[in-house]
Amino acid sequence: MGQILQGKPVALALSQQLKERVADMRRQGKTPRLAIVRLGEAPDDIAYEKSAIKCCRDHEVDVQSIVLPAGTGEEQLLAHLQAVNDDKQTDGCLLLKPLPPGIRESKAAEALAPQKDVDGITPGSLAHLCGLDIAGFPPCTAQACLEILDHYQIDAAGKRAVIIGRSLVVGKPLAMLLLARNATVTVCHSKTKDLPAVVREADIVVAAMGRARLLGAEYFRPGQIVLDVGINFDDQGKMCGDVDFAQVEPIVAAITPVPGGVGAVTNRVLLKHVVDAAQRVLG
Amino acid sequence: MGQILQGKPVALALSQQLKERVADMRRQGKTPRLAIVRLGEAPDDIAYEKSAIKCCRDHEVDVQSIVLPAGTGEEQLLAHLQAVNDDKQTDGCLLLKPLPPGIRESKAAEALAPQKDVDGITPGSLAHLCGLDIAGFPPCTAQACLEILDHYQIDAAGKRAVIIGRSLVVGKPLAMLLLARNATVTVCHSKTKDLPAVVREADIVVAAMGRARLLGAEYFRPGQIVLDVGINFDDQGKMCGDVDFAQVEPIVAAITPVPGGVGAVTNRVLLKHVVDAAQRVLG
Repeated sequence: MGQILQGKPVALALSQQLKERVADMRRQGKTPRLAIVRLGEAPDDIAYEKSAIKCCRDHEVDVQSIVLPAGTGEEQLLAHLQAVNDDKQTDGCLLLKPLPPGIRESKAAEALAPQKDVDGITPGSLAHLCGLDIAGFPPCTAQACLEILDHYQIDAAGKRAVIIGRSLVVGKPLAMLLLARNATVTVCHSKTKDLPAVVREADIVVAAMGRARLLGAEYFRPGQIVLDVGINFDDQGKMCGDVDFAQVEPIVAAITPVPGGVGAVTNRVLLKHVVDAAQRVLG
Repeated sequence: MGQILQGKPVALALSQQLKERVADMRRQGKTPRLAIVRLGEAPDDIAYEKSAIKCCRDHEVDVQSIVLPAGTGEEQLLAHLQAVNDDKQTDGCLLLKPLPPGIRESKAAEALAPQKDVDGITPGSLAHLCGLDIAGFPPCTAQACLEILDHYQIDAAGKRAVIIGRSLVVGKPLAMLLLARNATVTVCHSKTKDLPAVVREADIVVAAMGRARLLGAEYFRPGQIVLDVGINFDDQGKMCGDVDFAQVEPIVAAITPVPGGVGAVTNRVLLKHVVDAAQRVLG
């Protein structure tokens, strides 16, 4: 049976560190502050916003919700982001996505200051991830995978990591993060031939393609570490990952569950980035 | 015997396309223009600058050399780059690197406008390469590899590409370019275990670690396409690649020589980027 890499202990350990850091900063007269920008009333956005607000309050981090109507134009959004950039009290900004039609995500990404880009959407953050020595943050979900590896003392150096999925929020950033940890990194996708054989080569597998339980037993071998980033809902409406947990857990050395794995760590990473950003302001 | 993927025919074909495009733009009253910024008198820089100037002149593209003393400070360099950004006549800018000590490359990279960044050094260009829909260019050497694949009608889609080297100018950008071409991409480096076995898995091998003839016969198998990006000098002062050409050429399906391979295409790619940048200005 594989070890279950639960997210909760990772989140708790991060919480403890963050509470100490925030208390220390507050003693210096600085309270970290996150701005959350939401356009419209999509239920997923509202749920994520609520969870982020609760997480901030639990850690005594200030949070400001900026809610704009769904019909907000691109220029108006950019003006709001500029106001966030200019606001010295605000350390980090989370822009909820996807944005409504008619607003280009690339324009929003360019408008936000990389120093405040706590979810890693700006060109500066992407370049920072690629290794350019400038300010920026990795996307929270990608960083959450590293936090899990660190917590469970899994060293990626010299290991073969196979990432399935090449998105701008998980696959590509995680490839850069694991390369920086000295893993040998392979990125797979829908055009990869004989995907099961490629995934079996991995020491560390990251499933990030967003297809419910697509990866069954034939993709895995004993000894592997599996990080399942997928958040999907099956035909019965039950939340599940990209990996068929019931089939795969008995085979591999360790695996994150869904729910309760990577997703349980993400909002603590967001908070960590806000605190990191505030720390830089303090100097 | 492997097919020798000569760079010269690729360069000639690019030249012909570029000459037609430049003639067409000149008829519209626009001559593309490159600014080359050099700090100090390093012989490598001067040689590269000369070759770029000749290439521009051969294609009726305007070129301006901006030569600053080796002791130029960071702020002065940034002011010169800002002047290039502001100059409406200049379409592209090549900043010769490495920069002298005391000047942070990241600051120079941030200062240049991505629209003029014809060698792909800016955060915007890196983010563009990662897939963000903003202006930018790939580094010329990385793009030269794709031009060679295209010229010799080698389709990367569905193939396994293994890149050895993770630099910001070749390894990482090329990983992004080959992913965009639907290859399954693995990035290796000095910490990769059993490198020969990993390289033998590849359909397309890109050698970009800068170590003279490090890759011998044991890294290769029949059927592979080998792109050698290395430019090194051996103990006898002879230019050579990262691949031991004499050993490997008889084994593989095709291989680029050094000199005369990727390096013979790079300055045409630089020119292509200048013409692309000028085209965007024309609209």
